[in-house]
Amino acid sequence: MGDNINLNNLPPGFRFYPSDEELVVHFLHRKAALLPCHPDVIPDLHLYPYDPWDLDGKAMGEGKKWYFYSRRTQSRITGSGYWQSIGVEEPIYSSDGQIKVGLKKYSDFYIGEPWEGVKTNWIMHEYRVLSPNSTSKSSSSQRRNSKIDYSKWVICRVYERDEDDDDGAELSCLDEVYLSLDDLDEISLPN
Amino acid sequence: MGDNINLNNLPPGFRFYPSDEELVVHFLHRKAALLPCHPDVIPDLHLYPYDPWDLDGKAMGEGKKWYFYSRRTQSRITGSGYWQSIGVEEPIYSSDGQIKVGLKKYSDFYIGEPWEGVKTNWIMHEYRVLSPNSTSKSSSSQRRNSKIDYSKWVICRVYERDEDDDDGAELSCLDEVYLSLDDLDEISLPN
Repeated sequence: MGDNINLNNLPPGFRFYPSDEELVVHFLHRKAALLPCHPDVIPDLHLYPYDPWDLDGKAMGEGKKWYFYSRRTQSRITGSGYWQSIGVEEPIYSSDGQIKVGLKKYSDFYIGEPWEGVKTNWIMHEYRVLSPNSTSKSSSSQRRNSKIDYSKWVICRVYERDEDDDDGAELSCLDEVYLSLDDLDEISLPN
Repeated sequence: MGDNINLNNLPPGFRFYPSDEELVVHFLHRKAALLPCHPDVIPDLHLYPYDPWDLDGKAMGEGKKWYFYSRRTQSRITGSGYWQSIGVEEPIYSSDGQIKVGLKKYSDFYIGEPWEGVKTNWIMHEYRVLSPNSTSKSSSSQRRNSKIDYSKWVICRVYERDEDDDDGAELSCLDEVYLSLDDLDEISLPN
């Protein structure tokens, strides 16, 4: 019945907070395999290179983060600027920690002409699937899957870093900082 | 239809991540007013002073955080220790920022005899409603509500602070730290 969930009528407190693994294993795998996604919440905006502040109402938005499908590309240029990778790709593991299922790339948004812009607080996480063939496991089902081009699609998550932002839905960071203040008296500074 | 949501069958990516305001305005208000909560996800554990590591399977758990109703009390003593407030209460405002609707108290869990225990990494957020009468607004419906004892119930959220914890569902803190490393070369240190 979860398939029929009405996204405009979720009960209070329930939100779209996918884990890295879910984005890769559920949403990206199904997209690449042309399988239906239930619910079909993440739109494909590959043909629409919106500026990050124009994603609201077009991408799937939750907690001031926006999600959309796109395709792998070497450069993401928008109307007002461009996304530039910070040069790091973080591996995404399956929840049992055994299999590397995807990669997560971090980018900053710059306003201006490529590649001479001014860095903003807008951040993108770009998820892609690691091809099943590149993992150590091998099976007949994976050989069947080798016809699917898993590397074509990515999911982008975009948000604006804002240290004043505390909407209550994401507490861990501010709470940790807040509570760590309590530990300050336990720190001894060198004289 | 959201009322009939099957919590064991939420679509991938959807989780219970209530905001401070939702905990106060929806869950605590309805509990105090004896109104049904849809879905009825948060259990009342007032009579069961579980140690924090025993809450799994008893409280509502999501992302290694546990939620339960309790009653206001001056001391929370469990089988193995006790909760001690860090002495701060944070106001919770309505989403329009106009009305102070509740308070959020922070506590640490200590193992041992009160009040001589050893502090742990377990943390509690305790939410309570501010009585409608204590706000500046006044109306006939609020006068009717004055028979309800809003101060009796609290919601407790318990979790263990763990700096190695990165399950992907709560990214903001680690991501911010991670990305801020990128800014380090912009910092000039005094010689």
